[in-house]
Amino acid sequence: MTSSLPPVSDTIGDIQSLIRRPTRRVTSYDVASRAGVSQSAVSRCFKPGASVSKETYARVMKAAQELDYTPNAAARSLITRRSNLVGVVVNELAILHYPDILTELTRQFAERGVRVVLFSFPRENELDRTLAEVWQHPIDGAVVAARLSAVQAAEFDRRCVPFVLFNRHLRDQQANAIVCDQYEAARTMVSRLAGAGHKRFGLIDGPADSSIAQERRRGITDRLRELALPAPVVVAGEYDYASGGRGMRAIMDQSGTAPDAIICGNDVMAIGCIDSARHDFRLDIPGQLSITGFDGIASAGWLSYQLTTLRQPVQPMAVATADMLLGLIRSNTSYPERRVFSAVVVEGGTARLGPAV
Amino acid sequence: MTSSLPPVSDTIGDIQSLIRRPTRRVTSYDVASRAGVSQSAVSRCFKPGASVSKETYARVMKAAQELDYTPNAAARSLITRRSNLVGVVVNELAILHYPDILTELTRQFAERGVRVVLFSFPRENELDRTLAEVWQHPIDGAVVAARLSAVQAAEFDRRCVPFVLFNRHLRDQQANAIVCDQYEAARTMVSRLAGAGHKRFGLIDGPADSSIAQERRRGITDRLRELALPAPVVVAGEYDYASGGRGMRAIMDQSGTAPDAIICGNDVMAIGCIDSARHDFRLDIPGQLSITGFDGIASAGWLSYQLTTLRQPVQPMAVATADMLLGLIRSNTSYPERRVFSAVVVEGGTARLGPAV
Repeated sequence: MTSSLPPVSDTIGDIQSLIRRPTRRVTSYDVASRAGVSQSAVSRCFKPGASVSKETYARVMKAAQELDYTPNAAARSLITRRSNLVGVVVNELAILHYPDILTELTRQFAERGVRVVLFSFPRENELDRTLAEVWQHPIDGAVVAARLSAVQAAEFDRRCVPFVLFNRHLRDQQANAIVCDQYEAARTMVSRLAGAGHKRFGLIDGPADSSIAQERRRGITDRLRELALPAPVVVAGEYDYASGGRGMRAIMDQSGTAPDAIICGNDVMAIGCIDSARHDFRLDIPGQLSITGFDGIASAGWLSYQLTTLRQPVQPMAVATADMLLGLIRSNTSYPERRVFSAVVVEGGTARLGPAV
Repeated sequence: MTSSLPPVSDTIGDIQSLIRRPTRRVTSYDVASRAGVSQSAVSRCFKPGASVSKETYARVMKAAQELDYTPNAAARSLITRRSNLVGVVVNELAILHYPDILTELTRQFAERGVRVVLFSFPRENELDRTLAEVWQHPIDGAVVAARLSAVQAAEFDRRCVPFVLFNRHLRDQQANAIVCDQYEAARTMVSRLAGAGHKRFGLIDGPADSSIAQERRRGITDRLRELALPAPVVVAGEYDYASGGRGMRAIMDQSGTAPDAIICGNDVMAIGCIDSARHDFRLDIPGQLSITGFDGIASAGWLSYQLTTLRQPVQPMAVATADMLLGLIRSNTSYPERRVFSAVVVEGGTARLGPAV
């Protein structure tokens, strides 16, 4: 493998340089030759689950060790035609606020022999630029935790890159997705709060371009309407700590008085809301005001907050995502499926909850 | 490119399957042919900084668009012999506790046309298994935020994979590294606390296998000794919230009374320590007890805490890391260099600080 090798084909020429290696690499053929077995026997020894005799296995492993042979991803892909890399397309803010999701996804893929390439982007309107980069790397598939347009989704299909949406789905289109039912979760929280007698609600909403925020808001307003309770006072938020405090002050400005309960679009805003309610308005939480969040992040459990919230089952969702995407990559066929998980109420100490009404 | 193509050589055979593509890909030769220019002219058009006339550039771009040509990483590496992927080798806990470091590193590499492959591992003793995986992927280099043994570091060199240590260095060995001076930072905090009259210190230490924790502890004990102040009461911690509360209770158990100041090995433990001091011992912070952290994470700034801490300059450190690693990859030569950044004191509201003594 030298740079003066004439291009057998442009594709092979391109690809040969994907691996940077100063000296000739030891190949499975070298190992086969030393072990006195066929190359396919060597391949089978390094292929999980493949059948091979104990004796052959021992001979191959000995030869591999002597030659310092690494069964690398390229070698594996000789059998599987795969790079064993998957892309994760995600907003930077999502990594900052939900590092447990990325950690769990990475762990689940790693346990299945696959590594994650991070395609994070700073703003949703830069998604197109990020996708242009995705196509440039040899990934087997992608987890997309971003809102795809129909055109963008079609581009994945056209390029035969399987993808699984994480906590997103496509309106009026079929796509594989792992989601937590945000609408149901929001309705449940309203029901439990109404069950404890709360009547006047505030909502510190998530960003306008967040589909999760939209579903949560829709769940809240629908359920309040069904219960014949007043529509909530809605103020905008950006999913960050500062938004929670700003939201609390905006609701007080608009209403003149605190509502019975404020539902926040995520935990970090709920924490900001609690801090403002306590420090700016000297309100007793939950005595004078119930405050709830969404997500169940680690800091929601800290003694100063003990937030009442809805926890997304991150670990099972990550397992399902890895299994679904690797299944799509293996089978190359797609029967679009949406696996929907339910959030779990964390009772905490910042809201009075009753039985669901 | 079909699976029945005979292996021209094992290496080319291996590598051709790195890219999964059901139909023949449009190549730079196709673009060259349509634009009526040479293939090398097409290459130059997609190579940052390469010289090409305006007219040629326009013709190539038009042809590329018409043919839907993607100048992919493989094509770029035809020129550069690079995959434009770098590995980040990091403990899972570090992602959970310091997501801003991963986010900033990923952003800095992305701005330089390079994407990050995550090699996270759950425990330090699984680093060998993780490195075995690193060798299997076509990365150009790696950022290592883990403690490497001399043998592990030598393996990077032997395999010609350049690496930059992030907040780690190798004892008695030269290696490229970007670090924040933990020893200096710890000494500064002791000086500022001593300057406000604190005499009896407690330390909630980081994990035993953390080199950062060791340097912070060494800075604290050395500076206290120089100031002829008593050695600190040291209790073990695990860098998590629960450790902070446990540490606070352990210090009270050992001392019978609160020390003047407790320095915590990181911010999350300091937050746990504050919560325990307030809720379990009804202590006024900082009136009766000063508590400080390290790192300057987002939640340290929340109203309920407003932690006095030392902030690591994450953004400049990430810029330096990306520049250093890409420099090593480009030049292939290595004059080991350590770039050392200083932490900045965040005055906060949980400790009484004086002028440095």
